Amino acid sequence: MRIAILGGTGDIGEGLTVRFASETSHTILVGSRDASKAADRAGTYESRLANHGIERTIEHADNTAATSNADIVVLAVPPHHVGDTIEALVDQEVLTDQLLITPAVGMRGDESGLHFNPPSTGSLAELVARCAPASTAIAGAFHNLAADRLADLNADLDVDTLVVANDEKVRQRVIDLVNELAGIRALSAGPLANAAEVESVTPLVINIARYNDDMHDVGVRFT
Amino acid sequence: MRIAILGGTGDIGEGLTVRFASETSHTILVGSRDASKAADRAGTYESRLANHGIERTIEHADNTAATSNADIVVLAVPPHHVGDTIEALVDQEVLTDQLLITPAVGMRGDESGLHFNPPSTGSLAELVARCAPASTAIAGAFHNLAADRLADLNADLDVDTLVVANDEKVRQRVIDLVNELAGIRALSAGPLANAAEVESVTPLVINIARYNDDMHDVGVRFT
Repeated sequence: MRIAILGGTGDIGEGLTVRFASETSHTILVGSRDASKAADRAGTYESRLANHGIERTIEHADNTAATSNADIVVLAVPPHHVGDTIEALVDQEVLTDQLLITPAVGMRGDESGLHFNPPSTGSLAELVARCAPASTAIAGAFHNLAADRLADLNADLDVDTLVVANDEKVRQRVIDLVNELAGIRALSAGPLANAAEVESVTPLVINIARYNDDMHDVGVRFT
Repeated sequence: MRIAILGGTGDIGEGLTVRFASETSHTILVGSRDASKAADRAGTYESRLANHGIERTIEHADNTAATSNADIVVLAVPPHHVGDTIEALVDQEVLTDQLLITPAVGMRGDESGLHFNPPSTGSLAELVARCAPASTAIAGAFHNLAADRLADLNADLDVDTLVVANDEKVRQRVIDLVNELAGIRALSAGPLANAAEVESVTPLVINIARYNDDMHDVGVRFT
């Protein structure tokens, strides 16, 4: 499979790129609005992987070209760019029959901590589903992974991620994909209507890291 | 300490009563709107504890008397009765300087699953704080414990619960109380403004139990 990580220059994009590159044989494309930035970061990721004894080529392109050349597209852009990014991909007619996975979470902060701040659709996953063509398979996953821990190839993860999609076969396809990564267990959380409760875990784990001295880069396990 | 479990006749109330009775030396009072129902259930819990070799007296009263006789009050009533229950306790002037802990979560269901359905205050914890006297210490805890697993004294829990309260000393007091129970680790999630993300975990774990064949009575651990 060819997996495009849009926003692959950001922190969660870095983690997903190096984990998929080091632990699977899928071709990974780093996407960015700026093709030269994608090229630069792909080189950085190749160097990081080489330092771990892993010789892999990381492909790179702007988000549009990355999407048109991928079987699976991970929308790892900042949450406030999710709507714009999807609209641009739709306008350019590059979203067809890919599997599109969104890890994004809308959050706002105040003095107490971070809070779930969804769009009017209820969740970013449902916003993506509303904007994308009907032919594109939509799923949410990878929301509540601590970026630094994901990107650190020496770190044991031992965490869960929750998968939402309306089609049970799409959910299973994403679960199987995630389970290729050591240390991340995928669980189904059901249809996209259940995405809000999944996305809401991300501000929670950040608040837990803030309020418990001995916890950082907090992940979650369901037992 | 004297711990009143209001709504102690319900499933989460049963679990908290038998766990606190079996694992701590605190006096436990089962509260109910109906004093005779409280008496009946207290007897049942005593029998269940005796079957585990634990001879304990479980006190019982209506919610008002239980509250006025307690140092700690756990508001284990159904979510749609939280507002009414607090208002009645305030009217009867029995809420003074107790520590009041709310485990309640507002939820609604549809064909996809359960969804977080908070009151207009943002969370039930904030609703309780708004209604209670300023002298009462308010905290949220015990939200996302699977009732059957909690009530089964043979079940290993090995789960976390999240504590929210505006006063750091109140949070620590609740954390210390929870940590008297084997198998439940308390973590701070910060002030009551962060309660929505904590309460929202409850529909999520119920959805996970529904959509993953091998999971039931799902709990959560933060790692």
